[in-house]
Amino acid sequence: MRFDHKVPIKEIATLINAKLVGNTEAFATGINEIHVVENGDLVFVDHPKYYEKCIHSAASYIIINKGTDFPEGKALLIVDEPFEAYLKIVNQYRPFAPSMEAVSATASVGENTVVMPNCFLGNHVKIGKDCIIYPNVTIMDYCQIGNNVVIQSGTVIGSDAFYYNKKTNRDIHYKKMTSCGTVVIDDNVEIGANCTIDRGVTGVTRIGAGTKIDNLVQIGHDTIVGKNCLFASQVGIAGATKIEDEVILWGQVGVNKTLTIGKGAVVYAQSGVPASLEPGKTYFGSPALEAKEKMKELVWINRISEIWEKINQK
Amino acid sequence: MRFDHKVPIKEIATLINAKLVGNTEAFATGINEIHVVENGDLVFVDHPKYYEKCIHSAASYIIINKGTDFPEGKALLIVDEPFEAYLKIVNQYRPFAPSMEAVSATASVGENTVVMPNCFLGNHVKIGKDCIIYPNVTIMDYCQIGNNVVIQSGTVIGSDAFYYNKKTNRDIHYKKMTSCGTVVIDDNVEIGANCTIDRGVTGVTRIGAGTKIDNLVQIGHDTIVGKNCLFASQVGIAGATKIEDEVILWGQVGVNKTLTIGKGAVVYAQSGVPASLEPGKTYFGSPALEAKEKMKELVWINRISEIWEKINQK
Amino acid sequence: MRFDHKVPIKEIATLINAKLVGNTEAFATGINEIHVVENGDLVFVDHPKYYEKCIHSAASYIIINKGTDFPEGKALLIVDEPFEAYLKIVNQYRPFAPSMEAVSATASVGENTVVMPNCFLGNHVKIGKDCIIYPNVTIMDYCQIGNNVVIQSGTVIGSDAFYYNKKTNRDIHYKKMTSCGTVVIDDNVEIGANCTIDRGVTGVTRIGAGTKIDNLVQIGHDTIVGKNCLFASQVGIAGATKIEDEVILWGQVGVNKTLTIGKGAVVYAQSGVPASLEPGKTYFGSPALEAKEKMKELVWINRISEIWEKINQK
Repeated sequence: MRFDHKVPIKEIATLINAKLVGNTEAFATGINEIHVVENGDLVFVDHPKYYEKCIHSAASYIIINKGTDFPEGKALLIVDEPFEAYLKIVNQYRPFAPSMEAVSATASVGENTVVMPNCFLGNHVKIGKDCIIYPNVTIMDYCQIGNNVVIQSGTVIGSDAFYYNKKTNRDIHYKKMTSCGTVVIDDNVEIGANCTIDRGVTGVTRIGAGTKIDNLVQIGHDTIVGKNCLFASQVGIAGATKIEDEVILWGQVGVNKTLTIGKGAVVYAQSGVPASLEPGKTYFGSPALEAKEKMKELVWINRISEIWEKINQK
Repeated sequence: MRFDHKVPIKEIATLINAKLVGNTEAFATGINEIHVVENGDLVFVDHPKYYEKCIHSAASYIIINKGTDFPEGKALLIVDEPFEAYLKIVNQYRPFAPSMEAVSATASVGENTVVMPNCFLGNHVKIGKDCIIYPNVTIMDYCQIGNNVVIQSGTVIGSDAFYYNKKTNRDIHYKKMTSCGTVVIDDNVEIGANCTIDRGVTGVTRIGAGTKIDNLVQIGHDTIVGKNCLFASQVGIAGATKIEDEVILWGQVGVNKTLTIGKGAVVYAQSGVPASLEPGKTYFGSPALEAKEKMKELVWINRISEIWEKINQK
Repeated sequence: MRFDHKVPIKEIATLINAKLVGNTEAFATGINEIHVVENGDLVFVDHPKYYEKCIHSAASYIIINKGTDFPEGKALLIVDEPFEAYLKIVNQYRPFAPSMEAVSATASVGENTVVMPNCFLGNHVKIGKDCIIYPNVTIMDYCQIGNNVVIQSGTVIGSDAFYYNKKTNRDIHYKKMTSCGTVVIDDNVEIGANCTIDRGVTGVTRIGAGTKIDNLVQIGHDTIVGKNCLFASQVGIAGATKIEDEVILWGQVGVNKTLTIGKGAVVYAQSGVPASLEPGKTYFGSPALEAKEKMKELVWINRISEIWEKINQK
């Protein structure tokens, strides 16, 4: 998430009650999770396993629960609970400020775009030209829609990520990681009815140009979908997954989080994808195998009774 | 379902044209299905198999298609078709009376709760404090939402149960059992976008405190969900199921009706749950097995070709 | 799709820049895909494999990419790209003309029908008598709803078909086949919350009388559902499928396109139906087998380890 303006790192240290060391005169431009950080960003880390990765990432300022070495020009913000610090920063610089108008005054809609009745367009939503937004669509704050995009009725763009931290030693069981990211829909995308596309936690959920999505499809937070993909009805994709260009997922396919489906892969209906898939191949089953292997497997299962008879004849 | 006021049992007998025997001077406080009856309730039964259970249940007044013995203080209302009598009573004392305002005048909303544009709040809906109800949410009559609850866009709370009786000897094939129950959402629950939570047929569908539900999830009528459960996207739970505390259901899991999933059980994505599951265990597959058994099964399937070769070498 | 008035075939030839041969003085009454054409219709064909079928179908006028023989009284409209001609005709005679009123002035609603708040009824929508349309329902242009129909909240009737032609040699990857068909819902149908029912591409998606549909169900374009069917929650049916009367599909069943499920067939939860099913039988599995065969298969799988031991003892 990019701040609306550059924020002095000292101001942030005060907000989260952090010990600030290093480049104390710097300004932060945003806050992001480690997998999407950029130069000028804050990042946060509370597990020693990820210290090195965060300190040497593109992020300039590291919210961390222990002092340690770090490259020149960067800064550490040392606090007991980096996750709580993240929540404070998001609440301060991207507070929940719901539009109470069905179309926010800060939403913009391009030339020749039709927004039909009963839609909600949140704050800072941008829609390009030549789009059709059918009735009863919800597009939440900061989401961006390209040109020549169709979104059918009942679809929700920019719902919050399903992302919770378990707090076993607290009165609260699951603590929500507040979403401050967005959704970006590129040109010529078409999205069916009653779909849900979650926004990134801090970054972007993206649907690449020319991709076509059927009804009742779920796209999790921070998922990056390539160009010219086809997702049939009731497909579900968990969070932070990468779907490369021209992937085809048939009906009711489920895809696990943080994996990659390679360019042009095809996954048959009802398959479950637990791990990354290679480009250009065809898959089937739950868990998904290469389709020809799955077909062999089905034939082998069918021969078990034959095997049984054979060994009992001997 | 609780009546708005105590109703003389004689009035009900007249309404449904019943022969009234027993405690004819009593008052009924509500009508319920056998699994949720309380003292003061009417219950109805048309199959001899269930006569005993109904007559000796907590219900005080039994609508039945045959005279029989019953405990002192209770009453029988004898009619040819108890199911039709049920429908008449519901239509009389809880008639369909749709609010034609997007927010009914009888709906109440607590302090600091935000109800965003294009929502529908039906008659007698109660929402607690510090909640966020995102745009395009529908909450039907009599549903109750606790404090600090989040409901994302497009979700429907309190849709009618999918509950029909087959009438093979009639011009009508399926006759609907009219819903008169509600949904209760406890504190700190979060529900994703485009979910559907059916109300109880006569009783309550309940989501326990702290439970978090992702997008496009279906919860059937009269299902009781415990505290601090996690349901990932596209999970479907049929009617009258009991999900104990801290159960985790991953994406696209399907759960059959009238079963129990024990405390802390975990069910992997796309599994199908046909029968009750024990607490604390992990399950996978359709039909679901303990995950370690299912993993072994997958390994065994993989070895069928090896077996085939082995027996053909001999 | 039926035109609003009879259109001279010469006018259409001019519009699509076609060479017109045969009955040049005729009038077209509509345009349809080959599987739903009627006398007086235009049809289009661009693959020699389907020339004969189209020319000898009920269609009177054939848009084709090559001259060929044809029956007397018919006409050919010869163009390079029949698919592009189809799009031009649909855009000309059934242009996208969105109602910007939540209830179009051309929508009609029968006696005793209740349309609750936040619904959208498009142009030329017809709803019969004694229906309940719950809040936040969307019914798109030209859809027809019978009598005594219930549609629960969030459901979308008449979304566009998910139907694209791959254009590998173009700058555009997938080209949409514009929908101009409708949905017809017959009497006594009940549809749950957040369902999606796509309209026919040129013809009709039909839900037969007395059929009951649970929440979050997807019905693809041009699917014809018979009478008194039951579809449980999260069922998905792809396009142009025929479901005969009294079929029962349990939760999360997926059904492939252009197949037939015979009368009274029952398909257990989570099954996947890749090909036509016989009437009156019960099916289970993905891919679906007769349920008793599937049950045997599960037993055999369970015996593989036993087989393994047996052959290793010898």
